Amino acid sequence: VIEIRPLLGIPEIEAGNDLAAMISEAAGGDGLVDDDIVVVTHKVVSKAEGAVATIVDEQQYRELVLDQAAAVLRRRGDLVITETPHGFVCANAGVDRSNAAPGTAVLLPDDPDRSAHGLRQNLERLTGARLGVIITDTFGRAWRTGLVDVAIGISGVTSVLDLKGEADAMGREMEVTEIAVADEIAAAADLAMGKATGIPVAVVRGLRLGDDGRGTDLIRHPSEDLFR
Amino acid sequence: VIEIRPLLGIPEIEAGNDLAAMISEAAGGDGLVDDDIVVVTHKVVSKAEGAVATIVDEQQYRELVLDQAAAVLRRRGDLVITETPHGFVCANAGVDRSNAAPGTAVLLPDDPDRSAHGLRQNLERLTGARLGVIITDTFGRAWRTGLVDVAIGISGVTSVLDLKGEADAMGREMEVTEIAVADEIAAAADLAMGKATGIPVAVVRGLRLGDDGRGTDLIRHPSEDLFR
Repeated sequence: VIEIRPLLGIPEIEAGNDLAAMISEAAGGDGLVDDDIVVVTHKVVSKAEGAVATIVDEQQYRELVLDQAAAVLRRRGDLVITETPHGFVCANAGVDRSNAAPGTAVLLPDDPDRSAHGLRQNLERLTGARLGVIITDTFGRAWRTGLVDVAIGISGVTSVLDLKGEADAMGREMEVTEIAVADEIAAAADLAMGKATGIPVAVVRGLRLGDDGRGTDLIRHPSEDLFR
Repeated sequence: VIEIRPLLGIPEIEAGNDLAAMISEAAGGDGLVDDDIVVVTHKVVSKAEGAVATIVDEQQYRELVLDQAAAVLRRRGDLVITETPHGFVCANAGVDRSNAAPGTAVLLPDDPDRSAHGLRQNLERLTGARLGVIITDTFGRAWRTGLVDVAIGISGVTSVLDLKGEADAMGREMEVTEIAVADEIAAAADLAMGKATGIPVAVVRGLRLGDDGRGTDLIRHPSEDLFR
């Protein structure tokens, strides 16, 4: 059985805040145990790291998006599909004004894997538990409507589970070999957070941590991508 | 708190089997309650419906894939990215030989929404509970490595949650408006099932069912899709 618990009571985050201390306090005394996966929306990570820009008007927002993009893949009206310097393909280079202070926009963390690693180290020190950390963002997809949360930074937990060579229940070798488990965990955690409520952290319990994956493992190399 | 429980003890499914009866029995006496969402991999639905083809060799498999596709979007080596008659974009038109009897391949259900609706009606009759049903398949994505489970058939539960007009925690109107919750539920359920183990059903508890969505709600209309 897998359990997903939203962490309530995390205050509005400002630059320089100790996110690990706030999460550990919100989780309560025995709130985090071995093998728990702490899933955090990047927005609070970015705010704690000061990855926030001031924007006075729509024009400045559009310039900021282009400034944060490594490449523009498609454009239609106000919609800009970008590749970020990290390699993520998403709308508006991840620049987001929702749940940001008025007149500001939240950027992606510089290096979400490094952020995840630092947060994990601090959380493990505070709690004594062996944990995984996944930092998420909300991305659109080709071919399917709506958005889902995905993993952009990972520490201490499997990114992609490779079943190559494993047999299915009939003894036949699996055709499906690589499962994007960290993205599935990110999506699962979003169900407990809720977008409008602004709950930025959830704890997923009941999975094995597996190996120490990276958010960049989930980026398909452009040369292997048939849809760019 | 959201809880995801794999349903153990469902036997190998054959054409004509009563899937609802098997699921209800595997769930046990009080195993399904109001607002539970029953997530089922399409493979057992297809098998129960007889949507299985005999294939003797690789050549016949490749012909079957093209026969099941409404259109081929991209092709590289053995990889064929197709649009199915339902409108789903996926590899090999959803034809899958994993967890299929030797010499056979499992096809997509004719109408996954209709299958979900029938399964829900039968499960509600057997259990007396008000339920949601989601039928899933495992799809690849553009831009990101690995595969995730998505919803292809839905009954009695929200497909896409529209937050348009809702305010964020700061009182600003949300920029992210449409959340593909049924896909997030499908991904969450896959974490409890496990591909190689062949557990085909999981129960998600702790969410509100919302409105009566359709799997087809999650298909982006080709005219609005910038990546085809």
